Amino acid sequence: MSFEQMWRDLEPVGRSAASGGYFRAPFSTAERECASWFTEECARRSLEISRDGNGNVVAWWRPPSVPAGSTRGGIVTGSHLDSVQDGGAYDGPLGVVSALAAVDLLRDRGFTPCRPIGVSVFVEEEGSRFGLACLGSRLMTGAVSPEAARQLRDPDGIPLPDAMAAAGLEPDLGGSDLLEGVECFVELHVEQGRDLVNRDAAIGVASAIWPHGRYRFDFDGEANHAGTTRMEDRHDPMLTYAMTALAANKQARLCGARATFGRVDVSPNGTNAVPSRVSAWLDARGETSGELAAMVAEIERLATERAGRDRTGVSMRVESVSGAVSFDPGLAQRIATEDDGDDSTAPRQAQDIGRSGRRWPIIATMAGHDAGIVSEAGTPTAMLFVRNPTGVSHSPAELVETADCLVGVEALADTLQRLAS
Amino acid sequence: MSFEQMWRDLEPVGRSAASGGYFRAPFSTAERECASWFTEECARRSLEISRDGNGNVVAWWRPPSVPAGSTRGGIVTGSHLDSVQDGGAYDGPLGVVSALAAVDLLRDRGFTPCRPIGVSVFVEEEGSRFGLACLGSRLMTGAVSPEAARQLRDPDGIPLPDAMAAAGLEPDLGGSDLLEGVECFVELHVEQGRDLVNRDAAIGVASAIWPHGRYRFDFDGEANHAGTTRMEDRHDPMLTYAMTALAANKQARLCGARATFGRVDVSPNGTNAVPSRVSAWLDARGETSGELAAMVAEIERLATERAGRDRTGVSMRVESVSGAVSFDPGLAQRIATEDDGDDSTAPRQAQDIGRSGRRWPIIATMAGHDAGIVSEAGTPTAMLFVRNPTGVSHSPAELVETADCLVGVEALADTLQRLAS
Repeated sequence: MSFEQMWRDLEPVGRSAASGGYFRAPFSTAERECASWFTEECARRSLEISRDGNGNVVAWWRPPSVPAGSTRGGIVTGSHLDSVQDGGAYDGPLGVVSALAAVDLLRDRGFTPCRPIGVSVFVEEEGSRFGLACLGSRLMTGAVSPEAARQLRDPDGIPLPDAMAAAGLEPDLGGSDLLEGVECFVELHVEQGRDLVNRDAAIGVASAIWPHGRYRFDFDGEANHAGTTRMEDRHDPMLTYAMTALAANKQARLCGARATFGRVDVSPNGTNAVPSRVSAWLDARGETSGELAAMVAEIERLATERAGRDRTGVSMRVESVSGAVSFDPGLAQRIATEDDGDDSTAPRQAQDIGRSGRRWPIIATMAGHDAGIVSEAGTPTAMLFVRNPTGVSHSPAELVETADCLVGVEALADTLQRLAS
Repeated sequence: MSFEQMWRDLEPVGRSAASGGYFRAPFSTAERECASWFTEECARRSLEISRDGNGNVVAWWRPPSVPAGSTRGGIVTGSHLDSVQDGGAYDGPLGVVSALAAVDLLRDRGFTPCRPIGVSVFVEEEGSRFGLACLGSRLMTGAVSPEAARQLRDPDGIPLPDAMAAAGLEPDLGGSDLLEGVECFVELHVEQGRDLVNRDAAIGVASAIWPHGRYRFDFDGEANHAGTTRMEDRHDPMLTYAMTALAANKQARLCGARATFGRVDVSPNGTNAVPSRVSAWLDARGETSGELAAMVAEIERLATERAGRDRTGVSMRVESVSGAVSFDPGLAQRIATEDDGDDSTAPRQAQDIGRSGRRWPIIATMAGHDAGIVSEAGTPTAMLFVRNPTGVSHSPAELVETADCLVGVEALADTLQRLAS
């Protein structure tokens, strides 16, 4: 079962005929179909599946030398199968399909690992249904409490445990031992920018993840008739929101950060009614936690100032903040340059570099990933990025050339081979 | 069955326990319950019900002198029973309940009309479900074609005829003879502003309705990852929309008009995705058609200019425009001052004015009404407004004091008595 064949099998699941984009919401039919596909591919490879009560899965390749059920010293690679609404094909699934293909490639090479190798799938990475990104890995590592998770509701008001139960799972939320004793975790992911394009490199290794957060702004005004209410008599929260969206964009530009209002909910959302409330979610990211906090504070200050002029109210609530993640620098260096075991500090000659010819750039990312959660919990962690020609992600236009996908599989196989030798 | 009793019967129907507001969407359970209530109240009064294939109803009080089934020379009063989402109790129902109560009052007075008196309910006045305000009266008068109406869909994609059929109606869209030969139409309505409060008057008579329209703006950009996409690489339609909402507000203030963006639809509406599209609906009103058109053109120009800077696209589509409506000035004068039959041009002494002591102000309104559609179709038409202490409408806070409701019933009864004598 080649990479291409696996990719073709997964390609139609949850795809919109209209846009070509995907919606694989956690515990939806489409996402569960992806999960079943994963289980079948693991069975085909005789990988032993472990699950936790959060919906996360790790499928183990245990050579005869490794005791049954042991995860000690294991090397785990994987990603997620859920997507944002109308997202791309690669964000998540590329890491899962590449992991399975890398196992195949290692077996083709006749390689027998000295350690267990695991292929993982974590649930609700995007936060597209319950609003909290990396929910599965956060629950596993204890970064979010089971009590807090049980309070989460999807846009239809369905609590997380009910959504899981409706999908046939038996929810038992909370910290789990899926990665107990694991030596390192490697996530391969499509790059969500054009850094690798600019560097003319197919593969990169992550250095760090920017701090980032989600903030809910509620702009409160007074519903009224859009025709008869004089402009000067209004308390129109849409105006306060609109100014805040423009201010967020300007602040992010000023400090080289990111600020986005991509989700808005208007009440009552009628053409001929001044809204009573506009709720909007700010996604903000900065190079340091200090810069991020300062930018968000400035956006909130400008919103409040404008609310005074509009005679509206504004309240801001932090939904989640993730601090900066620095991936294990030694591990990144080992993976990127194949200097493992080489005591010389002089750079190797090109012909000495491994079969992937690797001297991969080490780059930062502004996107959150399960790898960041796993790293924060103390497991040495690395990420491999695969080039994205347009840099577009979270969109049907997201793309990876097949040739780069195959380079990614080989890079991941090389990495696993060295780590599991 | 007093006004108060009827009001109490209708009060809980379609009301939100959370906000206290109403949603009586056309052909929904709540709105149909209101329609059934109306039918029962008419039966209780032995009014003869006529219906058309658009869902409109007129219930006739025909004295013995009037031939069965005749509408010739009739005087019709009424309003609507649907509401905007989370709207108030009075917008629409006040006119219907007052009409029934006025019939009761005329009968209590022992009055026998020389002409048929009709009580009307027109469907989908608010346009809250199918996007076209005054849909029922527009279909009845031919102001909208049945072909165009059949194309209308609600936000769930349900076509108008299917929604009607699902509510147990037999749709037969198109011009109808419900008001055939009618001499005049009078609509009583809650005022949706504070003009009467400022004039210290419980009742007013409409002079005209401002021209108004609904315009759909589609702002098109490119979906992308909210974290990894540099601000300068984005095509973010939210920014173009935000600037347009602020520009619309400013333009309306500059020319003493109204411009509101109260309805927004974002795709994919995810916190961590730059939107691919923002659709937003502009409700605009101006004193003259020329002023309205100039203001909308300027808003569109500013949107297009900003779209150039955001590297987004913008397209605007007119969903509906209603020209200025001038109600019959003679009829308004007759109703407002009770100078009927008085050849003298000198003002009457206060003690000569009728039992309601009426010398009601004649005021313009910025809200569209079925009365405007009926007037445009050539039937002499008038409107009575009842004072609204806060001026708030299309909101749970909409209010009419009970004392003013009763003054409204008496004013309407007086008006019908004079017109039907």
